[in-house]
Amino acid sequence: MKPFFAPASVAIIGASRHPQKVGNVILKNLLNAHFKGKIYPINPSTATVLDLPCYPSVLAVKEKIETAIISVPSSLTPQVLEQCGQKGIKNIIMVTAGFSEIGNKELDQNILSIIKKYGMRMVGPNCLGTLDTYSGFDNLFLPRSRLTRPDPGVISFICQSGAVGSATLDLLSKEGMKFAKFVSYGNALDVDESDLLHYLGSDPQTKIICLYIEGIKDGKKFMKIAREVAKKKPVIAIKGGITNAGAKAALSHTASLAGAAGIYKAAFKQSNVIFAENLEDLFNYAKILEKCPRPKGPRVQIITNGGGFGILATDALSSCNMEIIEATESTKKYLRPKLPPEAALHNPLDLTGSVTTEHYKFALNALLEDKNVDMILLIVLLQTPLITPEIIDVIKEAKRKHSKKPIAVISTGGNFTDIYVRKIEDLGIPCYAYPNNAARALRALYEYYHKKK
Amino acid sequence: MKPFFAPASVAIIGASRHPQKVGNVILKNLLNAHFKGKIYPINPSTATVLDLPCYPSVLAVKEKIETAIISVPSSLTPQVLEQCGQKGIKNIIMVTAGFSEIGNKELDQNILSIIKKYGMRMVGPNCLGTLDTYSGFDNLFLPRSRLTRPDPGVISFICQSGAVGSATLDLLSKEGMKFAKFVSYGNALDVDESDLLHYLGSDPQTKIICLYIEGIKDGKKFMKIAREVAKKKPVIAIKGGITNAGAKAALSHTASLAGAAGIYKAAFKQSNVIFAENLEDLFNYAKILEKCPRPKGPRVQIITNGGGFGILATDALSSCNMEIIEATESTKKYLRPKLPPEAALHNPLDLTGSVTTEHYKFALNALLEDKNVDMILLIVLLQTPLITPEIIDVIKEAKRKHSKKPIAVISTGGNFTDIYVRKIEDLGIPCYAYPNNAARALRALYEYYHKKK
Repeated sequence: MKPFFAPASVAIIGASRHPQKVGNVILKNLLNAHFKGKIYPINPSTATVLDLPCYPSVLAVKEKIETAIISVPSSLTPQVLEQCGQKGIKNIIMVTAGFSEIGNKELDQNILSIIKKYGMRMVGPNCLGTLDTYSGFDNLFLPRSRLTRPDPGVISFICQSGAVGSATLDLLSKEGMKFAKFVSYGNALDVDESDLLHYLGSDPQTKIICLYIEGIKDGKKFMKIAREVAKKKPVIAIKGGITNAGAKAALSHTASLAGAAGIYKAAFKQSNVIFAENLEDLFNYAKILEKCPRPKGPRVQIITNGGGFGILATDALSSCNMEIIEATESTKKYLRPKLPPEAALHNPLDLTGSVTTEHYKFALNALLEDKNVDMILLIVLLQTPLITPEIIDVIKEAKRKHSKKPIAVISTGGNFTDIYVRKIEDLGIPCYAYPNNAARALRALYEYYHKKK
Repeated sequence: MKPFFAPASVAIIGASRHPQKVGNVILKNLLNAHFKGKIYPINPSTATVLDLPCYPSVLAVKEKIETAIISVPSSLTPQVLEQCGQKGIKNIIMVTAGFSEIGNKELDQNILSIIKKYGMRMVGPNCLGTLDTYSGFDNLFLPRSRLTRPDPGVISFICQSGAVGSATLDLLSKEGMKFAKFVSYGNALDVDESDLLHYLGSDPQTKIICLYIEGIKDGKKFMKIAREVAKKKPVIAIKGGITNAGAKAALSHTASLAGAAGIYKAAFKQSNVIFAENLEDLFNYAKILEKCPRPKGPRVQIITNGGGFGILATDALSSCNMEIIEATESTKKYLRPKLPPEAALHNPLDLTGSVTTEHYKFALNALLEDKNVDMILLIVLLQTPLITPEIIDVIKEAKRKHSKKPIAVISTGGNFTDIYVRKIEDLGIPCYAYPNNAARALRALYEYYHKKK
């Protein structure tokens, strides 16, 4: 599976001189990434593409080719695949659409038999391709001017739909989320979600796996692999086509038999796959699971400088069955003289609008040490004027000293706040803008580690 | 109530030369806004503040004063209020904290009796104050460098908590949301949520009212006023302290008796107040209710260029009981030759990644005219290369021609997408990044107009 993400050499079959053709965009993106492998444009009707020599077919290339990206009209795919087989290419990324998703099942069988004959593996058809931020192998056929590429990170995203993948990758990259590998696998005619999950389960660069699935081809295979992988690293999944109307839509998209919500939820649960209700949750969960250690229990201490945010966070945590209990009396006694006189020494601990960086320091460290506290939800509203830039050092130092207790931050605001949020996330602490998102993420963190086997 | 938002003259009692004091920040913000009224700093121990002459008390000012903003230690508030009464000031914004929220009920009674004696009205205590984007009256005591101020718009926000108000105002202003009036009313010792709701109900600049409430002082009064106002304009509310744990926290924040969730939900429902589950929903609902007309029914047609997004939108709409039905056969027949051959002519209508601006034009106009369609959910993923800048004109023209059918847009992405999203919102069309948020907003729009009386 490795050549799907980091091949030593790649052929672009259907490379084109026309800037709006898929075969042109892919080539341009590969050249603009830091990809170190050999690149062979293939097109019988042109001599060069983007200043690279172009070959009439893969058979005209003398050197070994590991991976072929195919973007030709669907009617030409059998012929082109034959040539790949003869050339000894083992990994195919089939971008071309027009197979069973439009009812063309015969073509499916045709290319599947060629794949099998030569012992090749194929991602697609009807897919967007793959992206590896480490190897620089970027074959997504969407221009870099429109789709922000992520920086290298530890989250990998297996996404059946190309559009869901590219749009969220674009949004999240802008927001600073980092990724290891991305793959849009389309119709899953050969390589399916389970194969990719299996591979990424052993990928050392991948610490968290996010999945967008429309249909699972082989339920037993998926559950077996998911259960194994989820023992090693968190797997979070969202299911498209979970309602009847949605399932109908999935059928004409990737020819997936989407099936009943209950079955999927039960299968995920049994495999310890975290089920995300929506895209926002999927990545909010990924962020906390990437950055936070295992919480000992479900008890969350809220520290806030905004009473209302403390209340909303309490409501949200309480609604998802997390525990809001009081710190020990000795912690309170220690903190009382160190905090503003109007501070409410409960849970939430409300430091009020007159909070200073120093107050945060005392509260955060004391509560991280408290035996009644399993996790901290730290609300830092940076609009209040007495919080200084040293708040970053305070959080950094507290995390270093108490590295075994999860800390999540809520910080809500505009441009001034954004600068701090980036710095806090760079410390390895997840930040959220809305209390309910933070609360749901904390629950996902707790559940992943404490789910009954 | 008008002098709380647009006074002809205002005294800042507790004006200070110290840049970190509330009385300094308020004065600076007022001077930096486009406020045209007279400003009188009051402080007995200094002659000038920020180059303005300072008065020892309001009684030393010869001219009439309409409104006083009080930011002095709580022990001095009775004395200062007496002076305001003697001066004939009728509107008080009491920023000072340290009243019943810390158990000081005697002080409550004390200042309340002074208020009554002179027939004054008071917002607060323990509040952040008010902001009027039209009059430029900005007395929020948070610096402009940390808290982005919104541009003038039609949404007004009544917010019991100062922190919830300021942080969300900051975030949403960055995202381009525009506001008319904002008020944080704190403990609501005199002016309460119902008074403010009543006033904004008749405010011509306010078309949508958002409420963050911790406790309602007088349920009957609220329901009577809310019912009246909701007939004229949408009222959307979020309730802090809706769980037992949250209610406990609310008691020490604004001394509110938060009470059971069920009671509040029922009261909102009976008053046709739209209940928002969380802050994100509150403003997602406000945006659609601001921009969209009344939908005739619950039937939503989805148009997409990303199959997966179409499926997720279908799931989300279906989960909130909206209807996904097929367009008429004549519309489909008309569209078939005009769309990409691989386009799926169902609901969702999937234009696929090879969509052009022209395809969107045909699809959008034909479906807006279709009698089976009450609303359009238009998904435009701008990563695909064939969508040109003219897409903005296409959407503008379609909205102009079919102004009676609501259109909401989902567009998800990074910086390239953001530019288009701003342009689409400027056309008066709400945009969302995530399908479930758009779906919930469409439901709120439908429910507001179709709720059983």
